[in-house]
Amino acid sequence: MGNDSIFMGASTKQGYDIASKSREIVRSLIADKIKDLSPAEQRIVERIVHSTADPEYADITEISSNFVDESIKAIKARKDILTDINMVKVGINKYEGEIKCYISHEDAIKLAKEEQITRAAAAMRIAHEEGFDGIIVIGNAPTALFEAINLVENEGMKARSIAGVPVGFVGAAESKEALTKTKIPNIITQGPKGGTPVAVAIANSLIGLEKLD
Amino acid sequence: MGNDSIFMGASTKQGYDIASKSREIVRSLIADKIKDLSPAEQRIVERIVHSTADPEYADITEISSNFVDESIKAIKARKDILTDINMVKVGINKYEGEIKCYISHEDAIKLAKEEQITRAAAAMRIAHEEGFDGIIVIGNAPTALFEAINLVENEGMKARSIAGVPVGFVGAAESKEALTKTKIPNIITQGPKGGTPVAVAIANSLIGLEKLD
Repeated sequence: MGNDSIFMGASTKQGYDIASKSREIVRSLIADKIKDLSPAEQRIVERIVHSTADPEYADITEISSNFVDESIKAIKARKDILTDINMVKVGINKYEGEIKCYISHEDAIKLAKEEQITRAAAAMRIAHEEGFDGIIVIGNAPTALFEAINLVENEGMKARSIAGVPVGFVGAAESKEALTKTKIPNIITQGPKGGTPVAVAIANSLIGLEKLD
Repeated sequence: MGNDSIFMGASTKQGYDIASKSREIVRSLIADKIKDLSPAEQRIVERIVHSTADPEYADITEISSNFVDESIKAIKARKDILTDINMVKVGINKYEGEIKCYISHEDAIKLAKEEQITRAAAAMRIAHEEGFDGIIVIGNAPTALFEAINLVENEGMKARSIAGVPVGFVGAAESKEALTKTKIPNIITQGPKGGTPVAVAIANSLIGLEKLD
């Protein structure tokens, strides 16, 4: 079924036809905005716009120059992918490595209560305690992104890259701006917008890019 | 933790503070646009905007007059909730009834291949064959929404209501417009936008509304 299928995640003939037509429309809408990105970066942004039907993501997505290379390297080595919430976890498919999420883990629930932090932030700490090494994908909670940055910068957490696209009017924009100021290879969406479909689109793009590589 | 907690799904003090602040911001952004809706409908739209950080949803969300009442009745009776994809399923929480999704069911995969339809559409047929009776929540696939409408109108599928918010540039707008022309109690988002967070926000709002009722 060719590259469009890998690119868009279609698994049947009808699904492929839809993905292919959608790709054409997405390209017609945002081609000009993404023309200075690398082909791999273009694919990521196209998939975000395909998944959200929101061309504004072509304006607000910001990718650090080393994000794609470092992420593909981690994907090839089958490093873990850590997500903040289960919705993001179940959306990522066709990965031969492990996808982890600790938000429902009893230690995260306990830690959140003890420390008066969100469960999503506590889940990042548990992942680090468990020796996490891989790509972090945050589609929901700004508190998880702030905590991941803290753990990488101050506690030696091994994040090969971070897809930081939490959503919301409280803290999301600030958490993403903080990520761009680190040396961690990253992708973000500026401002309050982001979310599960954006996070999933990025992760599945990276997995698809490895297959094309 | 009060109504804001039920409304936004927060489970810790910090989560509650964020939800509460977010609710204030959402209200300041869209209060005028939703002032003619019922309080229950306002809560649904507020939660969609909270989940997506996208105030445009206050303009494009359309709710049939019987949607809330019929949905709450079904929730109270612990009728099943049927989702098109697993991402939507795992996002719905605190429901004491069953949440079903057949997209990974082997019969749906087989049927999709045989009939050359999408797996999401095949999954709707399998649900009907299994005797589904409840609320249908579609956050991704226009083909699933078209098939659900067909099954309700022509095959006697029991949908108490449909939250039809598939996303994409191919078929999504048309499938949602088709839903509004039926007699099925429904909520849609006009145009290509919609998606998992919108679907999950609607379902969790309905579950929260029952608790407040």
